[in-house]
Amino acid sequence: MPFNTGGITVTVAGESHAKALTVIIEGLGAGIKVDELEIYRFMQRRAPGKNRFSTPRSEPDRPVILSGIKNGFTTGSPISAMIENTNTRSQDYGSKLDIPRPGHADYPASVKFGQYFNFCGGGQFSGRLTAVLCFAGALAKQVLREKGIEVTAHISSIHGIKDKSYADGIEDVSRKEFPVISDDQGELMKAEIDSARLDGDSVGGSVECAATGMMPGVGDFLYGGIDGEIAKAVFAIPAVKGIEFGSGFGVCTMRGSENNDEFFMDGDTVRTRTNNHGGVLGGMTSGMPIIFNVAFKPTSSIAKKQNSVSLSERRNAELQVRGRHDPCIVPRAVPCVEAMCALVLLGKIKSE
Amino acid sequence: MPFNTGGITVTVAGESHAKALTVIIEGLGAGIKVDELEIYRFMQRRAPGKNRFSTPRSEPDRPVILSGIKNGFTTGSPISAMIENTNTRSQDYGSKLDIPRPGHADYPASVKFGQYFNFCGGGQFSGRLTAVLCFAGALAKQVLREKGIEVTAHISSIHGIKDKSYADGIEDVSRKEFPVISDDQGELMKAEIDSARLDGDSVGGSVECAATGMMPGVGDFLYGGIDGEIAKAVFAIPAVKGIEFGSGFGVCTMRGSENNDEFFMDGDTVRTRTNNHGGVLGGMTSGMPIIFNVAFKPTSSIAKKQNSVSLSERRNAELQVRGRHDPCIVPRAVPCVEAMCALVLLGKIKSE
Amino acid sequence: MPFNTGGITVTVAGESHAKALTVIIEGLGAGIKVDELEIYRFMQRRAPGKNRFSTPRSEPDRPVILSGIKNGFTTGSPISAMIENTNTRSQDYGSKLDIPRPGHADYPASVKFGQYFNFCGGGQFSGRLTAVLCFAGALAKQVLREKGIEVTAHISSIHGIKDKSYADGIEDVSRKEFPVISDDQGELMKAEIDSARLDGDSVGGSVECAATGMMPGVGDFLYGGIDGEIAKAVFAIPAVKGIEFGSGFGVCTMRGSENNDEFFMDGDTVRTRTNNHGGVLGGMTSGMPIIFNVAFKPTSSIAKKQNSVSLSERRNAELQVRGRHDPCIVPRAVPCVEAMCALVLLGKIKSE
Amino acid sequence: MPFNTGGITVTVAGESHAKALTVIIEGLGAGIKVDELEIYRFMQRRAPGKNRFSTPRSEPDRPVILSGIKNGFTTGSPISAMIENTNTRSQDYGSKLDIPRPGHADYPASVKFGQYFNFCGGGQFSGRLTAVLCFAGALAKQVLREKGIEVTAHISSIHGIKDKSYADGIEDVSRKEFPVISDDQGELMKAEIDSARLDGDSVGGSVECAATGMMPGVGDFLYGGIDGEIAKAVFAIPAVKGIEFGSGFGVCTMRGSENNDEFFMDGDTVRTRTNNHGGVLGGMTSGMPIIFNVAFKPTSSIAKKQNSVSLSERRNAELQVRGRHDPCIVPRAVPCVEAMCALVLLGKIKSE
Repeated sequence: MPFNTGGITVTVAGESHAKALTVIIEGLGAGIKVDELEIYRFMQRRAPGKNRFSTPRSEPDRPVILSGIKNGFTTGSPISAMIENTNTRSQDYGSKLDIPRPGHADYPASVKFGQYFNFCGGGQFSGRLTAVLCFAGALAKQVLREKGIEVTAHISSIHGIKDKSYADGIEDVSRKEFPVISDDQGELMKAEIDSARLDGDSVGGSVECAATGMMPGVGDFLYGGIDGEIAKAVFAIPAVKGIEFGSGFGVCTMRGSENNDEFFMDGDTVRTRTNNHGGVLGGMTSGMPIIFNVAFKPTSSIAKKQNSVSLSERRNAELQVRGRHDPCIVPRAVPCVEAMCALVLLGKIKSE
Repeated sequence: MPFNTGGITVTVAGESHAKALTVIIEGLGAGIKVDELEIYRFMQRRAPGKNRFSTPRSEPDRPVILSGIKNGFTTGSPISAMIENTNTRSQDYGSKLDIPRPGHADYPASVKFGQYFNFCGGGQFSGRLTAVLCFAGALAKQVLREKGIEVTAHISSIHGIKDKSYADGIEDVSRKEFPVISDDQGELMKAEIDSARLDGDSVGGSVECAATGMMPGVGDFLYGGIDGEIAKAVFAIPAVKGIEFGSGFGVCTMRGSENNDEFFMDGDTVRTRTNNHGGVLGGMTSGMPIIFNVAFKPTSSIAKKQNSVSLSERRNAELQVRGRHDPCIVPRAVPCVEAMCALVLLGKIKSE
Repeated sequence: MPFNTGGITVTVAGESHAKALTVIIEGLGAGIKVDELEIYRFMQRRAPGKNRFSTPRSEPDRPVILSGIKNGFTTGSPISAMIENTNTRSQDYGSKLDIPRPGHADYPASVKFGQYFNFCGGGQFSGRLTAVLCFAGALAKQVLREKGIEVTAHISSIHGIKDKSYADGIEDVSRKEFPVISDDQGELMKAEIDSARLDGDSVGGSVECAATGMMPGVGDFLYGGIDGEIAKAVFAIPAVKGIEFGSGFGVCTMRGSENNDEFFMDGDTVRTRTNNHGGVLGGMTSGMPIIFNVAFKPTSSIAKKQNSVSLSERRNAELQVRGRHDPCIVPRAVPCVEAMCALVLLGKIKSE
Repeated sequence: MPFNTGGITVTVAGESHAKALTVIIEGLGAGIKVDELEIYRFMQRRAPGKNRFSTPRSEPDRPVILSGIKNGFTTGSPISAMIENTNTRSQDYGSKLDIPRPGHADYPASVKFGQYFNFCGGGQFSGRLTAVLCFAGALAKQVLREKGIEVTAHISSIHGIKDKSYADGIEDVSRKEFPVISDDQGELMKAEIDSARLDGDSVGGSVECAATGMMPGVGDFLYGGIDGEIAKAVFAIPAVKGIEFGSGFGVCTMRGSENNDEFFMDGDTVRTRTNNHGGVLGGMTSGMPIIFNVAFKPTSSIAKKQNSVSLSERRNAELQVRGRHDPCIVPRAVPCVEAMCALVLLGKIKSE
């Protein structure tokens, strides 16, 4: 099913080792200025091979725009783009899927699609597909910026090492190679990643995202809430295991008198003194920054030997995952979270 | 927008103080046996006024089936039901919405809908609307049960007091008045609620939900993942601030070698020894129990005086919330979480 | 599946002999003035029992608004309404569906739903369900009128007797008991209906609909064309067998030089001198009146004895349809066509 | 918006002179055998430049499959394909859209998209986009064939010259260069086309389509009827002005006793002796062949000088359309109608 967030529809196709990834974006309208270089820069933030904290594959990930943009402006027709898969080493994956990799989609995909699953590199479940989501998200971010809305994210933690929280001030760290507010904490995080990599292991972490400049009242009741839409969108990113808005799971130990954010007049603007609600009340934007935090599991592909099963022989079997993999997916996930958030916000605004 | 989860579509209308709540459920097909008494029993689990831990309103919440069910079986036509709003005390809410209640949808709704917002009782943002979602969910649960799939939930924590986790064994506690696995912990939770109530305050908590018996391979890639769909569905319940699957936010501090759930042959069934993944891999069911945990904020309506603003006079103002309110919403939220989970599972199964 | 036309979603439930018909309308927004009496007047145009040209059943068809409208204005929440089925004579239909009525949905419904099909009165396939579509359409018409858009329809032919065409001038004849432009032709039509009625037979005909005041550019390319949306919507009305826009099937015998509508400046407005295109070019409104014509088959329920089969005994069988039926459905279909057109136009405008 | 027909979703992007056309097809599932040569043969039936009855452009229209198909089978991931636009002569269209061509989408598109409309060749409103719909339809036809369902179409008339009707026998004439049942009538049709071409003019006509082998009961009530879905799908083809099922507009002059198709037992199969209903009763398939007829207007692009307006100068202006155009679109429309029908049938079957 295409991904519809109200006014915007994003349809993605592709597999890790198919000829190309494709994306079609509908609903942006005509006459929107598109900065292709800016899109590419945004996409480079999730590209692999930038440094030792990410996989050594060097994919150019240069999107080819096939329709919908002409002379730097949207034409009003759906926007289609393609990213070719050029640097794929299928030989790392063998001729058939027999021993499913723990933590990956291999096993359920083998049940669902049988022998037809294009399993190399994880098929359509590969994190690689977030490349086209980032293309779409970069477009959405450009449209939002024109409306005074900024979406930004940072690494909020890696293996227990925490960055400063957006609750204490939102900062755009997107130009940093390692997107954290506190570079000192960033160094500790890098040490955790290095340590895992040397052990043939991986580490998890989290990404915090903020959107500022949103007008109040965007979102619908019940299953149309903007928080639910963001949650669904963010779970599209592989490795996500949780999401929380504002004080999030912290509310479980709070009383109402602590958690309720009191309103006050800030000039003629209604604001809340605190933002435990993370910018969402009753599924609608409150006008305060939308803030949410996303849990990412450690990369499932690790160099260590693991126990699994042989699907063909129906017996237990050992597995050694080959290929080139990130010891920590979190740094590259930062723009993906921004992208998904931006797509939801724009879609919701357009459907108001 | 209707709530579509693949094969099932649920459309809800209603406001806290409107004539009635309405729900239309499409996609169930013909010939499904419907136990109306069982539906009513399920709905009673979320009904208010059962004991001192919930609001003293006594709503019968008896749904009237308008079409789609005849002689105890679905006819194949959409199922429509209505719950009349009989016991509403609009005078608690005054003649117009002026001072928005902290934590509620009042303020963004006033921006979105202006003077037309039917604000009494929170309008369409009231927790009352979950009554019809529970009606739909109860139907879904009956269909799932025929397929050997059980959805169950319990209070996993209240104000820091934790129940046993489903990770250590899934138990159906739905028949308990206070649905916890450990009754001792339940007593401590009740004390927390009582204490908050006596202080004119409220407390937050969490609900853990499990679905057993799901076949592997249900769910789609990217934005079609079953985890994302469940997340979106659960955020439809007012007061939800976070959701996590399996080890959830715990994965942020784990290494891949700890977090990866190794496969083994259990007879001829492929299973994992641990269930950190919470039954979802790559957006698809793995065949292991789906387990997720949901954070609920403390009830926003508290008796304590709070600071807010007067929207008409554009100045700061104090507010004393009147009306009858739960000091803790968590016990009544348990069946709501089950309902939303069941609707997603059934919809996803039907669209495979 | 709900009926979504861009910005508006209409969800209907009900069966001819169920407790009630229900409709939920989403997307209208808050603050729209609703004239309930005008809605009721519109619905009365399709109501049965008005004269000898329609079925003698007298259904009050008074809709009960359950939510979404307060003090005469939409609240911004979905609008829900119900029409109770009070005057149903199930005994006309026997205890089970055995001999399917020619021309009706009985046979395919019996295959699809088996014994669970609530077949009395045709179940969910009854023309009776258009009552709630008319409720929704009446609302849409009120919103369109505020935008200067009028939707009107008339009987364009009955059993070969033709009314004047909208191509020669659009006229609102909605206040007439028998909605034709030429009353003389109307008398001939009535004679055809009377003649068929006396023979225990029925007659077909057509309805022409026009929408004036539409701005140019509304509609999308390919499967999003406003003509395709109107076509789909109109086929929701039972007994429709064809639809054509502008010159319609007449284009099959035309040359391009005849059929192309030349543009000219009418003051500062771009218009076409002729309207063979029926107001739609490339799936978009051209600014000229939208004009389309709809074919309705003769009422399938006739008093004459007919050949059919016994489904239980798998043999040929004779059938005499009982019950009260219109000898010609066309007069009552006129407001239904307006309703479906109005819903599409409003939905499409809202999604631009 | 993507084109969703229940179980199948088709998303198209492209403009006549953009880099490429793109299509993404979702819902086919894994393990479907794909005959790429057969797809290409099908697409060649709508390709231009085959003979003097079609435009002399020679587009290879060879689709490049980007993902979703591997080793001749679907993988279960969305299928993406692209057709490059290689043979486009933008100079025929000038530097900006000033004088809208009568009968084309130019004028409403200029209102809707302003200067950003990629107007060369008609932009996204070009008949060229049906190339990718035919790709999708060819896939659907292969899946349907496995289920014993055949979709076939022929030219039913051109400029008043009629072919035999499917009511008198369905015949597959897809291998003929000029797809008519009666070749004699075909020669007369060709003479009409030739005559129009020599006059710098064009002619209209119609396409009749049949689907055999459909099981009864496929389709939903009201706006979910299979006839309405087919209608909407067929209006996606540029130049369509009308559609009718079975006896179509002929029913307007019939009595019920003539039009009702009586059931009889054909062995153990319930069939009707006649097929005035065109295979659809109450929005559902009846098990009889689905038969419908589609009206196509004469090609709007004609060589004759025409009156129009200058949009920039707001004055009347003459226009001489350049470029290479079909004097009659009907022969190339035949596979397009089959494609749209096949996509709807498959989608509806999959959502049952």
